[in-house]
Amino acid sequence: MYEANIAANAAQYLSKIRTDGPRIHCLTNNVVQNQTANMLLSVGAHPSMSADIDEITDFTTSANALLINLGTLDTQRKSSIRSAILTANSHNIPWILDPVLVNRASKRLDFAKELLNHNPTAIRGNKAEINALASSPQDLARQTGAIVVTTGVDDLITDGQQTTNITNGHPLMSHVTGMGCSGTAILAAFISVAEDNFKAVVAAISTYGEAGSVVGKKALGPGSFEPSFIDQLYQFSITAGAS
Amino acid sequence: MYEANIAANAAQYLSKIRTDGPRIHCLTNNVVQNQTANMLLSVGAHPSMSADIDEITDFTTSANALLINLGTLDTQRKSSIRSAILTANSHNIPWILDPVLVNRASKRLDFAKELLNHNPTAIRGNKAEINALASSPQDLARQTGAIVVTTGVDDLITDGQQTTNITNGHPLMSHVTGMGCSGTAILAAFISVAEDNFKAVVAAISTYGEAGSVVGKKALGPGSFEPSFIDQLYQFSITAGAS
Amino acid sequence: MYEANIAANAAQYLSKIRTDGPRIHCLTNNVVQNQTANMLLSVGAHPSMSADIDEITDFTTSANALLINLGTLDTQRKSSIRSAILTANSHNIPWILDPVLVNRASKRLDFAKELLNHNPTAIRGNKAEINALASSPQDLARQTGAIVVTTGVDDLITDGQQTTNITNGHPLMSHVTGMGCSGTAILAAFISVAEDNFKAVVAAISTYGEAGSVVGKKALGPGSFEPSFIDQLYQFSITAGAS
Repeated sequence: MYEANIAANAAQYLSKIRTDGPRIHCLTNNVVQNQTANMLLSVGAHPSMSADIDEITDFTTSANALLINLGTLDTQRKSSIRSAILTANSHNIPWILDPVLVNRASKRLDFAKELLNHNPTAIRGNKAEINALASSPQDLARQTGAIVVTTGVDDLITDGQQTTNITNGHPLMSHVTGMGCSGTAILAAFISVAEDNFKAVVAAISTYGEAGSVVGKKALGPGSFEPSFIDQLYQFSITAGAS
Repeated sequence: MYEANIAANAAQYLSKIRTDGPRIHCLTNNVVQNQTANMLLSVGAHPSMSADIDEITDFTTSANALLINLGTLDTQRKSSIRSAILTANSHNIPWILDPVLVNRASKRLDFAKELLNHNPTAIRGNKAEINALASSPQDLARQTGAIVVTTGVDDLITDGQQTTNITNGHPLMSHVTGMGCSGTAILAAFISVAEDNFKAVVAAISTYGEAGSVVGKKALGPGSFEPSFIDQLYQFSITAGAS
Repeated sequence: MYEANIAANAAQYLSKIRTDGPRIHCLTNNVVQNQTANMLLSVGAHPSMSADIDEITDFTTSANALLINLGTLDTQRKSSIRSAILTANSHNIPWILDPVLVNRASKRLDFAKELLNHNPTAIRGNKAEINALASSPQDLARQTGAIVVTTGVDDLITDGQQTTNITNGHPLMSHVTGMGCSGTAILAAFISVAEDNFKAVVAAISTYGEAGSVVGKKALGPGSFEPSFIDQLYQFSITAGAS
């Protein structure tokens, strides 16, 4: 449900993203790079995607947030991820982790656990992914200092102390690849302009799910759902900018 | 033509895919990864795409079918492909080959021929690709033990003994990238739940072409064709699940 | 504005692309490979995308134009880019440079400057990218011998002597990733069938912007803009083929 106070709060973030045009550097999987870029552009953020070790420092230092997504990993991207996180931390740039499918490959889980030691600002995964990392979202938040989000039929947001539940979205979202990954990118955009990260995460997850609710009601299937979803984020963004 | 007996048969497979949610691990080219994932999700299968040599065994052993597509190859992906096929064969997991553009690069053709020695369950390509591998689809089937499919204006399916022709689809399909590649992924999903592979391949190819026929009649161009095509596969899937 | 003489000229190129089916080999970034392939297919050109050093010579020598885009670089792709350009030049195959985000990473800028010594047929970037390479588009054209295009709210095309300005397109284009990159691919397709490269570039950029103008007026947002844009290029192409 997109409650009135969340909606007003989200509009402030959307308006600020549209005005500031934050740069979000994305070390994300090949499957969702195009979609992630389009989601970020729809709300007025500026994506970049280079994973080259020669370029990663330049792209990270000039970004306002860093997205780390563990899909389609390889040795080179792992090196660039490590380097980018160190750079982000030394420049106080927030970084957000999406531990895609860590429940399916043990080496990926090991790598994710290594990254948890480097102070992620937020972590978003589905329940199976978060459960592979810790005994509960709250525990993961307390261990890492991150705001932890599990998404699915219901979404949960916790910093280890306070926990918020959000129920919106649409079943079609589970039939479109990268909806979780792209949601983490939108979350990064909200955090990049935030003073209060917890509020920003709640606003991001609420807005994203609300777009799903609105679009899901009229979509014929997952194919047309995706472009309509991006249109809806854009509509939220320009409406917020006008308010 | 989507004949009544094929349609009934296809509905059984679609229903089983929707119920079982088979995992299809895809070692496929960068151009079509997003589209391939969305096609699989539209019918209720679960795609994964990692090509990392450190992860490939975990992803393959937990999959119900393995898709090998030779587009945008590189040295690392070749190593992962070799490893994944050995793993699949040792676990009796079916694997399906899409020899993309082997007619354009001699090293790619050599690599494809090497893979033919490892008992692919099925092979799908266009006529130029299949002709680069053997003197005829039937010969290729007999050499490899695979079910061989050539797609184009007319589709042909053969196991070297019996041969079935299918005429459906739409000319717009040749103006959308990855329609062949994604069709091979759908074929892998059908095989992953099949008892009779030949019937499953006929059902998959028929269903895929039928979606093209239905959507092509009303599409304004190749851009809107693709999301509508995915919607149509989803509609076939939920209709089959309801029957 | 899509002036009448430009339109007639563009129709000739579109018709020739549709008849000849030129092959465009694209060494382009992972984010836009699918979109770029679909843009090329919409006008009847045939894309290929391999960046493998073992395959690059075969793909380049059998292509009618070569697209070099510097997004999502890595060491292997740099080697393949160098090799492909040498091959293209030795076979008189035109090659076109898109210096994506050279203004964001110093090593990428160095690499772009190295490539400028190898006689690109055309270069297309936004103003920030072109300004990073030379003091003006005209200077860049004179230095390299290339036709230089800067795109944005206004487009400028120059060979260092004559300069043409084009004003069309739509603000939504800046909210869709890869619209510049894909435009460079369309430009490569026009050049691949051209006798007069300058006229071909003017026709390509005019056509591309005109598609944006037409589609932007009715689009609900950037999500549906992209498939509609590809439909529009296809409509231009089949209309040109029929004239």
